[in-house]
Amino acid sequence: MTTACSLTINNERLHQRIEELARIGKLGDTGVCRLALSPEDLQGVLLVKGWMEQAGLAARIDAFGNLIGRLEGKDPGKPILMLGSHIDSQPYGGRFDGAIGVLGALEAVQTLIERGIQPEQPIEVVAFCDEEGCRFNKGLFGVRGMTGKLEEGELERQDANGITRREALLAFGGDPSRFEADRYAAGAIGAFLELHIEQGPVLDARQEPLGIVTGISGPLWLTVEMTGFAGHAGSVPMPMRRDALVGTARVITALNQLARSEAGAPTVGTVGALTVFPNSRNIIPEKVTFTIDLRDIDMSRRVERERQLRNVLEEAASECGLTYTVREDTNSEARFCADHIQAVIREEAQELLGYAPHELMSGPFHDSLALSYVCDYAMIFVRCKDGISHNPLEYAAPRDIELGAELLYRTMVRLALGEEV
Amino acid sequence: MTTACSLTINNERLHQRIEELARIGKLGDTGVCRLALSPEDLQGVLLVKGWMEQAGLAARIDAFGNLIGRLEGKDPGKPILMLGSHIDSQPYGGRFDGAIGVLGALEAVQTLIERGIQPEQPIEVVAFCDEEGCRFNKGLFGVRGMTGKLEEGELERQDANGITRREALLAFGGDPSRFEADRYAAGAIGAFLELHIEQGPVLDARQEPLGIVTGISGPLWLTVEMTGFAGHAGSVPMPMRRDALVGTARVITALNQLARSEAGAPTVGTVGALTVFPNSRNIIPEKVTFTIDLRDIDMSRRVERERQLRNVLEEAASECGLTYTVREDTNSEARFCADHIQAVIREEAQELLGYAPHELMSGPFHDSLALSYVCDYAMIFVRCKDGISHNPLEYAAPRDIELGAELLYRTMVRLALGEEV
Repeated sequence: MTTACSLTINNERLHQRIEELARIGKLGDTGVCRLALSPEDLQGVLLVKGWMEQAGLAARIDAFGNLIGRLEGKDPGKPILMLGSHIDSQPYGGRFDGAIGVLGALEAVQTLIERGIQPEQPIEVVAFCDEEGCRFNKGLFGVRGMTGKLEEGELERQDANGITRREALLAFGGDPSRFEADRYAAGAIGAFLELHIEQGPVLDARQEPLGIVTGISGPLWLTVEMTGFAGHAGSVPMPMRRDALVGTARVITALNQLARSEAGAPTVGTVGALTVFPNSRNIIPEKVTFTIDLRDIDMSRRVERERQLRNVLEEAASECGLTYTVREDTNSEARFCADHIQAVIREEAQELLGYAPHELMSGPFHDSLALSYVCDYAMIFVRCKDGISHNPLEYAAPRDIELGAELLYRTMVRLALGEEV
Repeated sequence: MTTACSLTINNERLHQRIEELARIGKLGDTGVCRLALSPEDLQGVLLVKGWMEQAGLAARIDAFGNLIGRLEGKDPGKPILMLGSHIDSQPYGGRFDGAIGVLGALEAVQTLIERGIQPEQPIEVVAFCDEEGCRFNKGLFGVRGMTGKLEEGELERQDANGITRREALLAFGGDPSRFEADRYAAGAIGAFLELHIEQGPVLDARQEPLGIVTGISGPLWLTVEMTGFAGHAGSVPMPMRRDALVGTARVITALNQLARSEAGAPTVGTVGALTVFPNSRNIIPEKVTFTIDLRDIDMSRRVERERQLRNVLEEAASECGLTYTVREDTNSEARFCADHIQAVIREEAQELLGYAPHELMSGPFHDSLALSYVCDYAMIFVRCKDGISHNPLEYAAPRDIELGAELLYRTMVRLALGEEV
């Protein structure tokens, strides 16, 4: 399922930039560590800013640390067509997550300029500040900043070394005193397009280079604490036990079954983190704390699975003689991609690939999630090997990235030449 | 189920000594921290040594750090009747674990002396060095030393501060150069009696003060590592997952069911320690390491349960797409108490309490376990509240301790006056 058709974008330039950016914060042979607002992040942003300017964009770092390159439209007052992603990385990250969305967008706009096409509306290419959130334990900072969604106290959050986000942002060239001025007014952004690696195994398993995203599923994040009673593993007869780990095992098994209960549904359920107290080999577990991550593009199904899960918790606690608490950490709704942009992507992909690509939801968050609250958005996924991401082993084949950037270019051209946005 | 019969031993002296010993290394109102070979341990040993001497015993600290008080028999060459336990504690321990076995034994022998009874054989009261094993991560040191069961390198083991056992032992008054001289020859010990709190909830649930131990069940200790493949919790569809925690949950559930599968059997199975890697709420667990503790007084049943468990591991790994390794850390056999001494205890208990006490196996290890390889042994359990031990909340009622010490005394008298040992 590859295509031999010739592409409009400049493949060589695109790969060269991906390669050059990956040298900043390089980790081992293939990895990258470019933490948000770090010196490496700044070095990367300045490198991309230079490329934006070479391409003919007016580039600036805004108050939130976002890098924005603007191509003026025939009508500067029209809602902006925005493209982009992020170039900050996980501490033990790969070179494609985020980066291909920024450099792919730049390549698309540069190609547009080189072909002498002036868009109807302004086009902006953005490298959003701190998508990953690992340094200050809260992500999507830049995109939430420019869309007016920051929360109380975010500038006071500290990293592992006690540096506040305010300090790091000022050192980076951001400026909290200009936050209000740099917010985009309601309606200012018309649409947003994001190219990103899938960070999952679906396209790789289907042996298809690209996918069309239907939406970003909203995660429900719970933290459960089950409490029983410790005792010597050798001396408490089975019928007298109140083993918190036995109750927890039942919940883990049930969540797995619930997520699989409707064949073909994209529901996913995960217990990713779990700690046992006192965690000694010859003591019956007294307390187990574990997380639940439940996602679905269909909110009514997710609500139903949550209801079933809470019943299981009640039953498991009752049967094992445990008490339990459930804390809701996050409860996000699914955010769907705009049908009309998906239709354009579908048509252009059919033309480019010779077939309609697979359509799938995104489990992970992206900058798109925050933009979905202020404008229409769409996403193109690029296959990544074995679904590996947030890991130096992350890999996307050059040809797949080229096809993704070309599809982004063609979609952008359709929107820039007057397609309804 | 209490008794009003009058006791031979001196209750007041016994409780006073328990109280006074508990002041050394006192933790909060009720706890004790008297780590093996620590200054507190030495202070405790010297206090008990003084009481032994007051009682008329010849007391010494041997090369292994054991405190031994000897009452000569009519025939000094006869195999020794040994009584005792330990006075070292867990770091966050209680005042009864071990201590009542040493002070109960001293009380029994002192009562014998005060009543002018000279035993046929020598009687020795021993506070064994480092039963708990928490400081150097290997217990039963003193009793293994005197019975010739130390292993290569034990003196080189370090505590959390880098102090070796050799250094701690020398500071305590022990002497590795005298190890060989202080070993008991084969046949030198005729029988061993140990009084101990149950450290489990069986007697408390039955509302009975004392129990007769039938044997110490041998634990099988395994460490299992199950390995799947990490991935984003939002992006890997359920059918493509290889979730190590889902496989582990199946094993935990199965172990619990297997241990309960024969109603009334004393089989116990526990997963006490478990760690998840990478242990992040939105990453599918790649690796789970967990312990298995399986015990039974009936070795053939334990072997059968282990076989069933290994089948479950194989099935769970196969169904979840995991690999796994199993490491055997400990594989101890059950060690049964001597029938003829149990018979004496049963008769004396019937006389003392008015009924035959419950008979139960011991899950936890005791100094008795090591002695079981060189002589006949028997144990008397004293009820402890809610089965709590290795915790400052550990509690045994004064009357229960008195009854236990009295039963120990009466059993000792029977053995000392020529009962076949």
